Amino acid sequence: MFLSKLLPVKQALKIIEDTLKPTDTEKISLEDAYHRVIAGDVRSLLDSPPFSRSAMDGYALKAEDTFSSSANSPVELTVIDRIGAGSMSHAIVEEGKAVKIATGAPLPQGADAVVMDEYVQEQGDELQVESPLTPGENVSFQGEDVKKGDIIIKGGKLLEPQDLAIIASGGYSEVTIHRKPRIAVLNTGSELVMPSPDIKGAEVVNSNHYTLKVLVESCLAVPTLNHVEDDALKVKDEFERLLKTHDALITTGGTAISKGDVVVEVADQLGEVLFHGVAMRPGKPFAFAEVNGKPVFMLSGYPVAAMVQYDVLVRKSIEKMQNIYKPSLLVKKTAARKIPSTLGRTDYVRAKADGDKVTPLNIKGSTIIRSMVDSNCYIVIEENLEGVAEGEKCDVLLYDSLRV
Amino acid sequence: MFLSKLLPVKQALKIIEDTLKPTDTEKISLEDAYHRVIAGDVRSLLDSPPFSRSAMDGYALKAEDTFSSSANSPVELTVIDRIGAGSMSHAIVEEGKAVKIATGAPLPQGADAVVMDEYVQEQGDELQVESPLTPGENVSFQGEDVKKGDIIIKGGKLLEPQDLAIIASGGYSEVTIHRKPRIAVLNTGSELVMPSPDIKGAEVVNSNHYTLKVLVESCLAVPTLNHVEDDALKVKDEFERLLKTHDALITTGGTAISKGDVVVEVADQLGEVLFHGVAMRPGKPFAFAEVNGKPVFMLSGYPVAAMVQYDVLVRKSIEKMQNIYKPSLLVKKTAARKIPSTLGRTDYVRAKADGDKVTPLNIKGSTIIRSMVDSNCYIVIEENLEGVAEGEKCDVLLYDSLRV
Repeated sequence: MFLSKLLPVKQALKIIEDTLKPTDTEKISLEDAYHRVIAGDVRSLLDSPPFSRSAMDGYALKAEDTFSSSANSPVELTVIDRIGAGSMSHAIVEEGKAVKIATGAPLPQGADAVVMDEYVQEQGDELQVESPLTPGENVSFQGEDVKKGDIIIKGGKLLEPQDLAIIASGGYSEVTIHRKPRIAVLNTGSELVMPSPDIKGAEVVNSNHYTLKVLVESCLAVPTLNHVEDDALKVKDEFERLLKTHDALITTGGTAISKGDVVVEVADQLGEVLFHGVAMRPGKPFAFAEVNGKPVFMLSGYPVAAMVQYDVLVRKSIEKMQNIYKPSLLVKKTAARKIPSTLGRTDYVRAKADGDKVTPLNIKGSTIIRSMVDSNCYIVIEENLEGVAEGEKCDVLLYDSLRV
Repeated sequence: MFLSKLLPVKQALKIIEDTLKPTDTEKISLEDAYHRVIAGDVRSLLDSPPFSRSAMDGYALKAEDTFSSSANSPVELTVIDRIGAGSMSHAIVEEGKAVKIATGAPLPQGADAVVMDEYVQEQGDELQVESPLTPGENVSFQGEDVKKGDIIIKGGKLLEPQDLAIIASGGYSEVTIHRKPRIAVLNTGSELVMPSPDIKGAEVVNSNHYTLKVLVESCLAVPTLNHVEDDALKVKDEFERLLKTHDALITTGGTAISKGDVVVEVADQLGEVLFHGVAMRPGKPFAFAEVNGKPVFMLSGYPVAAMVQYDVLVRKSIEKMQNIYKPSLLVKKTAARKIPSTLGRTDYVRAKADGDKVTPLNIKGSTIIRSMVDSNCYIVIEENLEGVAEGEKCDVLLYDSLRV
């Protein structure tokens, strides 16, 4: 029923990727569009700036009038109107005339440059300009940023603050984006209890309840949290219930390789288990299934193994379901000491990066949550390497760089 | 009234920092604690693991019983009980006895090691062990990760997924964190309208409405969005209203240096303007005031200037108000072409970083939103530098690294 050989990480990722479908799209307020993925190209409905305007507080005039001016022999002009930002002068600037203008105000007809307040002397309506201007000086011309019909944002872009600004300036108060995937988290384990100072007998705090919630949220998806005992019938009911209303299911626990564990067996009954067991450490007991056309990620019950499995095998999938493609950025750092590894297996060694150096932590068990808290990166040792020597450059994946 | 000389960026930051007070603390559900700042040290209420437990599926036994075993001459033991995870055996493992045990189940009294399923043969209740075990093998001992009373998280830490796991395992379902600052955004400008395809006359789309909202959210604070015309009395009313219910105020528009602009004048009437004008480009027309003991950040109305001012002068302040201290990480990259700059002014040149290289964009106006959309970093040219030569290493601040 299951693969008897451990699958290399790259092959596992390929199998997962081939099953993923992007979520449908929906229209939302631009106010809520930060870090959402735009569905298609956005074309501006407006010129930007919408009109030619002054980039400075000063006086709008004909540049030609000032070509001969200097501090010793200033040119004299007559101020025929005065306007602030948001106001518009209907005066026409002819030879020898000027209009006092605020930053951002429309350039009056006839003017082609603005002289800054600092470079003039004004006396009543008489204006002395002390330096020559070039045509266009201190003017932002209509459409010089964006022309009506221009593509301002390409489809598929993850929206940053500045993207919202250009979309707003394009005339839109709503955008069409990919819906956030709804991800069901199902923690399995009869021993699991919620945190309290009174843990009895064989009870174990369900810390995965918390980590999986925020790991899913860190991928910009919407989690729901569920728990079930180690009982095949109950697990099956939960699978069926959750897959009706969610885009994907993530389970923890019940994935041991040595025997047919309950979660993987249920997935096999309801759909197709595409692989079980990955050549990685920690995190070997990972299974992946397709049930009703939806991906089911089966993680270990051990907190550290589950986190590493999520980072390596789940994170990018949840992102891709909403069309986010952010590559994992490996950086090179110098290993502070020797790290042994086994050929044919990818190791994710919890480590602390500091400047150019990276030091693996001593703790190795997949139960040891502290090792995740104390580390800030994985040293990634590919399957074709037998470890890293002291002083050797190695591949480092910073936790900070994992997030979208 | 205002400083006549432009203030260097570092001095401006120092003045702002000296006025900041951290928000008060509140207790919230651990489920909601991702990327919140913990108020004080958290000490574990529990040992973790809470009991000594099996790290493997196998048989709990006395290691000493197996010292002489090998594949050719296996040791024979009697299985006296069988338990799963979440169950507890009350059997006592004496010499010659074993208990079948699942991963995570408590180690029965008397046992000190677990042999994996793979290394035994079982026939009825007779068990053959084919290899010797060391005491402690495949056992996670009570408290080996964390001991009751240990500090599991230091006060002031920004909580990551793994931190929630260790806090949960410590017995807590709630945590005490710094309250998110409530930030009022006040866009000033009579010309500002919400986006629509029909922009008339001198109207300008209020794109700062959107960018400031998400810039504040990207600092984990809670914004409210407000707009007011360029009218001193109305601006004053808004200042008073908003400062009653918020921890800080961010305005846009009305900060021109050449004249007493309306926003800065109102701040001066109600409180103390600590500086007006910063030696940076873009973003010179920035003012900072303290009103009723609360910080007021007065940004330019120009979208790009406002974004740069936010990144340089506001972002870290909003973070510090909730005790987040994330230094801006400058990286060195090679300038693809010459970038002129002026002594005595810090330049933030919008640029595109690609690998080891960084290319400044051609556009320079502070009105040009596209320059923010097309760039992914600032080249930071400090005030003591007269620009950067082609091929020279320069300081780069990636937009991605700005976020918490």
